[in-house]
This record gives sequence, structure tokens and C-alpha cells, in this order.
Amino acid sequence: MRQEQRATALAYSNAHRHIFRKDLEELLAIPSVSTDPEHGKDVLRAAEWLSAAIGGLGATSVEILPTEGKPIVWGELRATDPAAPTVLVYGHYDVQPVDPLELWQSDPFTAVEREDSLYARGASDMKGQVIASLAALRAICSTGASPVHVRFLLEGEEEIGSPSLESSIDRYRDKFSADLCLNPDVGMLAPESPTITYGLRGLAYFEVRLQGPARDLHSGIFGGAVQNPAHVLCELIAGLHDGTGRVTLPGFYDRVRELSPEERRELARLPVTDEVVLAQTEAPVLYGEKGYTTVERIGARPTLEVNGLVSGFTGTGAKTVLPSKASAKISTRLVPDQDPAEIRDMLIEYFRKNAPATVTHEVEVLALGPPLVTERDNRGNRALARALRSVWGSDPLYKREGGSVPVSIYLERALGMPSVLTGFGLPDDNLHAPNEKLHLPTWYRGIDALIHFFYNMAEPEEEA
Amino acid sequence: MRQEQRATALAYSNAHRHIFRKDLEELLAIPSVSTDPEHGKDVLRAAEWLSAAIGGLGATSVEILPTEGKPIVWGELRATDPAAPTVLVYGHYDVQPVDPLELWQSDPFTAVEREDSLYARGASDMKGQVIASLAALRAICSTGASPVHVRFLLEGEEEIGSPSLESSIDRYRDKFSADLCLNPDVGMLAPESPTITYGLRGLAYFEVRLQGPARDLHSGIFGGAVQNPAHVLCELIAGLHDGTGRVTLPGFYDRVRELSPEERRELARLPVTDEVVLAQTEAPVLYGEKGYTTVERIGARPTLEVNGLVSGFTGTGAKTVLPSKASAKISTRLVPDQDPAEIRDMLIEYFRKNAPATVTHEVEVLALGPPLVTERDNRGNRALARALRSVWGSDPLYKREGGSVPVSIYLERALGMPSVLTGFGLPDDNLHAPNEKLHLPTWYRGIDALIHFFYNMAEPEEEA
Repeated sequence: MRQEQRATALAYSNAHRHIFRKDLEELLAIPSVSTDPEHGKDVLRAAEWLSAAIGGLGATSVEILPTEGKPIVWGELRATDPAAPTVLVYGHYDVQPVDPLELWQSDPFTAVEREDSLYARGASDMKGQVIASLAALRAICSTGASPVHVRFLLEGEEEIGSPSLESSIDRYRDKFSADLCLNPDVGMLAPESPTITYGLRGLAYFEVRLQGPARDLHSGIFGGAVQNPAHVLCELIAGLHDGTGRVTLPGFYDRVRELSPEERRELARLPVTDEVVLAQTEAPVLYGEKGYTTVERIGARPTLEVNGLVSGFTGTGAKTVLPSKASAKISTRLVPDQDPAEIRDMLIEYFRKNAPATVTHEVEVLALGPPLVTERDNRGNRALARALRSVWGSDPLYKREGGSVPVSIYLERALGMPSVLTGFGLPDDNLHAPNEKLHLPTWYRGIDALIHFFYNMAEPEEEA
Repeated sequence: MRQEQRATALAYSNAHRHIFRKDLEELLAIPSVSTDPEHGKDVLRAAEWLSAAIGGLGATSVEILPTEGKPIVWGELRATDPAAPTVLVYGHYDVQPVDPLELWQSDPFTAVEREDSLYARGASDMKGQVIASLAALRAICSTGASPVHVRFLLEGEEEIGSPSLESSIDRYRDKFSADLCLNPDVGMLAPESPTITYGLRGLAYFEVRLQGPARDLHSGIFGGAVQNPAHVLCELIAGLHDGTGRVTLPGFYDRVRELSPEERRELARLPVTDEVVLAQTEAPVLYGEKGYTTVERIGARPTLEVNGLVSGFTGTGAKTVLPSKASAKISTRLVPDQDPAEIRDMLIEYFRKNAPATVTHEVEVLALGPPLVTERDNRGNRALARALRSVWGSDPLYKREGGSVPVSIYLERALGMPSVLTGFGLPDDNLHAPNEKLHLPTWYRGIDALIHFFYNMAEPEEEA
């Protein structure tokens, strides 16, 4: 009976791809850029769109939950069997800013297909993944009852570091309780390599602002008399790394869990070779902390990056200004067992100790998310592995991911809930960059895999 | 007779201040920003406005001379005595960009008076100075014949480094020939300190662009695998100065003419104390090359400054991007006998030698102007000194100036013509910065001083 339902749902999925895609294009057309106050209304529109979509699945409840920031879309689908497990489906409906806009080949908020991929901001990160979950559930619910209870947690602040998520999870803990969280916000390594992620880096994000003279000065009249805050900023940033690619903050590596020989062997088997990463990034050469391979540096070692830098005149041509201000956005990616609050203290201390008397400075904390390593062999990951195998015909890869997924930390901490981390984005999807895209053939396979996953979750594992 | 004319002209000046000011406000309302192609038409409008104003003085000829870039406004006023000396009046009618616009207290192109000063872009640099010259000549020509022949050279490219000026001076050399050039593009040290400038720093201006990966990357997914071009840029910029404030480019100081003990003594007498510069800049502390005083560092020592810096995400909030590009505007102020072409080669060599293989880079040359030291005791400076003494009642100060005035170099080189460098702007005029202003009482005195100067130039020096 259940096998029959699964087959009917898969058939529905294959017959309704154009509908799923139309839904995705609608959601992509809403410019829900959470970092930009001018898009505040668009972020809310995306939430409303999703709450209507969940209602359309036949949900018993749908709510837009207020938080201290952007609202959370919540909803619930009930299985016939009250004893069925509950899956919390996570997603975020906000997207990254689009600048530099001039590098986009087509409008970021009008989805356009080119060579099997759909181009738009959020296509891969992660409106495409949210719609994949909804599409799988639509295929299931249009052809029968859901085999598991499903709840939704769709937030609108992921791209700004989920500042109000932790307090919201605490506030609505009864609404979010579940056996596990399905989180498809983490991509796969290649189109033919379905991937389960079991480790995530944490993120601590800062903005450092330096002020020298009270206002911009003429560099001819005052150059030589005051120190240029752009010089100071460059010196301070240069001092954050040594010549071997290591971060110099005292104590930065103290809590880093070293890789076991077994884990290093497994990571070495992933198809993340230097050649692949070179092709993906088109960097002249690769570079990173000495003593580690590229895949280890990305997933299992902490990093510190300047995400943005600005001072003085940045327009066309020559302006002979001695800038009064210089600022940088600086973030660190953290691995177990680093503590983001400790890293924050180290960075603040670094600037306090090293900024010269020629400038005043401030360090603003924009995000603090801890790292995570989950159990690879839990029920959710097993159900997902079988689902991926059903669609792709091959065993999934297990990886540690360089990105950060704060929600998994919070759910683990507040509700003891494990996360199943997957997704159907690819490394060349241009996440957070111009020309973000989604590979449609992989996306359709992902929808089918999620259908399998929900059915697998309802079955006794012996049957697998 | 001539003394009578002088008195009549001074009386005219004092009776027509409101007209001079109205003229200035009209010219300030034209946003002639030469660095911005969008203001191309405004730059031409400013040229047309000035050509009409020169015509209104009773000029025998007025022309807008085409050049490889922005046109030069030229004109000629004839003295009754054919043997009278010829003064070439220099000015530039272009202005700096206005950004950051949000820091202006009033619209940059609508002149507004606050506390005796007129606020607008170009008020001090140098539309105010151009109008001062025209106002002095208007007072002279409205009350009699000009005591000297006057020619004009008003260019529209000074704020972008005068790229086509040198070739234009060569092309129109007959039109520009004169006994000396009056150049009021250099300010005075304080309202009660009329100033003659006898030394100018040269300017070599560059833009350095670094490229790492082909496109912006997600800092979580790729952080650790490629080197961040913002880090590289910061390291390269940090390496341009040592811990004592000296520029590290090999050979940078080789041709610097050392100050004589006498010149150091004179510079020490200028009212450019550390207290004054601190008050003008509101920097936390002063800073500069060890072994030199602030006034020496500004006028007589070369400097290297970052004028602008940009990489990655510079908007509000957190974007986890690993930037693909990073760029800086870098300029050096040069003193005799440094050669801007040699400095260019040193900078290009520095980046060639020190940029790592993780980035590609390019260095664009935006301006190359040599430094200048003129004779303090020549006929023009003597005539100006007497004029300033007549109005202020005190001897002028003689200074070396940190800024650059390419036209003086070109006139010296092509026509052997000395420049008389003065002006009625003040150090706190916010040149090249928001809220540029002109101190009106000083400006009116400047107009009177220029009336004296033109008459002084026509008199045998024995009469003085």
C-alpha cells in the first residue's frame, strides 16, 4: 500500500514539474533581501507567499509567527498515524543582496533559463530548496495522506546571521518540536554526487570602523601631517594572517578539534580535488593554511576573511583625498570546538592592542554562530541516504561543510533535535554572487529524493 | 594719474561686492565635476559662462579653445601702453566630486552663506579665486584702461590632473605667452596671513587593481581554498610604509632635495604649528616621517597616500562573500628633484615584485605631475608682496605648499614663464571634502589685493 502511494507520488512529481517550476519563479520574483531595509516589505511578501503555499498543501495549521525581526512561517501537516515521526522542514525565504548588479547577465529577480539552469538570486540559496521540499510534499499530499507529521520553520533572517532565531525557537518551542529537522540549505559536491553534510563551520562576523581626522582632507595640503586611516586598516588586516596562511589571533586555534587520521582519509576521497576547486573558482592558484589539503581547509579548519573593505574615494578617476574613515567587514569561519564569543573577544582585543593612537576605532559584532558536527549514522541520515541512493543509484558522499547553518545549532541546543543536512545546489551555483543559478535536472531529482525521504522516515528500518 | 585710477578701481570694488558675489553664486551653481562623465555638459557650461564674463570685461578677444579633453577659455585685455607687461591669469573652472553627499549640510551646488562663509563645491577651489581675478579686472576696466596686458588660461581638467594641458600649452603657445602667470589656486595660511607660495609638490596618481578568483565566492564554501585579494591588497599597501612613516619604495628618497638650515628656520616661523594642524584636521594625534616637523612633512617632504580603497561588500549588514577583486587609489606627492616617471616605475616594480601568484594585478597611471620650486624674489612675487601688504598691512608669508599645480610646471617648461602663486582660500575650507567653503571677508580683501597687484605690475619698481 505504502509502496503504491510512493510510486503515485513520484508519478505526480514527474507530471507536474512545470507547476513546481512556476511556483519557484513566482517566489524568486520577490526581492526578499533581508540585509536591505528598503526590501523590508518584500521580505514580508515572501513570507505571505509561503504561508499561502503551505495552506495549499492541506496543512491543518499555518501561521506567520512574529519574532524580534523578520517573521517565521510555520505550519503543520498531520499524518494519518498519530504515532508517525515528525519532521521539521527548515528553510529561509530571504536572499543575499545582488550587488554588483552590473555583473548579472539577466535581472536577478526575473528567473531565466540558460543551458539547463535557472538564473536568479535565491535560485539555489535557498528558495529552490524550499520549493523542492514543498513540491515533494505536494506530490505526496495530492496523491494521499502524508506518511509523517510535517512542521515548517521558514525564517527570513538567515542571510543576516539569524539574529532573532534562537530566541524564537525558545519562544515557540512547542510548535517546532519534532524528531529531526530536514535542512536542505547545504549543497551537494557534484551533479552525480548526492551529499549528506555532517559538519558545519560556525560564523562570527564583524565590522571594524576606523576614524582618523574628523573629515576627509586634501592629500596635498595635509598629506604627511596625519596618518591615513586606510593605511592603518591595511596594516591591521595584514597583521591578521602570517606568511603560512594561519590566523595570528593569539589562541585562535587552541580549541580546534584536530582531524583524526580516519576522517582525513575520508575527506581525501571526496571529489573536491585541487583541480575541481581551481575550475570552480578560476583563481590563479589555490592558497591556504600550510599542512592541510584544500578540502580540509574548507571544511575542517577555521578561516578569517575580509568580506568588504572601503575607504575614501572609490569612483572613477583621481580624487586627491586623504580619507577620514576606513572600514572592513571581517568574518571568521569556526570549527568544533571553537567558541564564537571567545573569537569575538580575541578580535576586539587585537584591535584594542594594535590600533595606533592616530585613529579611533570600533568593532561591531554582526553575527556569532557556533560550529557543529552531527552524528553521521542517525535515523534521519540513514533515511536520506536510502532516498538519495534510490534516485541517483549511488551511495551519497559524507562531507563537512565550510558554510554555517545557525538553525542546526539552535535546534540542537534548545530542543536536542538533530538536523539532516542536504540540498540540491551545486558548487558552481554562484551563491552570494552575481548570476546565481539552480541546475534544474538536479533539482527535479532532489524533489524525488525528498519524496522517498518522507516515505522512508515512516517505514521501519528493517524493511529498507 | 595712475594712483587716482587705482583708488577709483578700489572704490568700485567696494561698491560692487554684491555683484561679484552674485557672479560667484552663478558659477558655483554649475556642477562642473570633471571626473564624472555625466557632468560633461556642465563642464562646458562653466566654460561658456566664463567666456561670456571675460567678454563682459571689454576683452579684445575671447575664445573657447578646443583641446584633447575639456576646452580652455582664453581671452585678452589690452593695456593702452603697448610696452606694458603681460600677465597670464590662470584658473580652472572644474571642481571635485561631491561624494559623500550625505555629509553636506546644504546642497553643494547652491551657495549658502553661514557665519561669513559661502558654502558650495568649488567656492574655494577655485571658482572663488577665478571670480576674484575677474572681479579685480572688472573694477579696473570699469573705471579706466587696464594698466597691463592680461591674458586668460582657464582650464577644465585640473581636478583630474590636467591630462591635456601640456599639449595645449604647446599648441597655443603664442596665445599664452606672457611675462608671468598669476595663479591664485594656492591658499593662504590664516585669515591674517597673506601668503605667497614658492614651492609645490608634484603628484603621481595611480589605481591598482587586484583580481583573485574569477567571481565573488561564498566565504563559507571557499574560504580557506583561495587567497582573498582584499588580504593581498592590505599586505601590499601595508608594505609601502615602514614603522617610521617613511615610504619603502627603493630609491623613493634618492632625489629628494634636502632642506637647507635657512629654509628650515623659515618654515619653522610659519604659523603651521602642530596645534594649528591638529585643530584643522581634528585628528587624534599628528603623524609623519620621523626627523621632520609637520610643516616640513607637508611642504618639503614627499608622501604616499591611499586615496581610496574598495573590495567586496560595502553595504549595510553582513554578506559572507569572499571578494574576487580589490582595488586602491594610491598617490604620491613629490618634491624637487623627484621625477614622477621614476616614481611610477618604482610603484609598478613594487607590485610586480611583491604581488603573490594568488592574484593578477594591474597598475593604471592617472596623473604624473612634477614638483616645482620657484624664485622667491622675482618681479611678480615682489608686486604681489606689495599688494598684499597694502591690503593686510603686514608682510606676506612665504611657504612651500603640499599640493600640486601642474600648470606652473608646464608654463615653466614650455615657455620659461614664472608663476606667482597665491590665493585667498584658507586651510579649513574643506577642499575636496564635504562643506567646502570660502571666507567672504578674506575673499573681498583678495579682490582688492589683486587690483593692487595689476597696478603694481605696471609701475617701475623704484616707485614702490
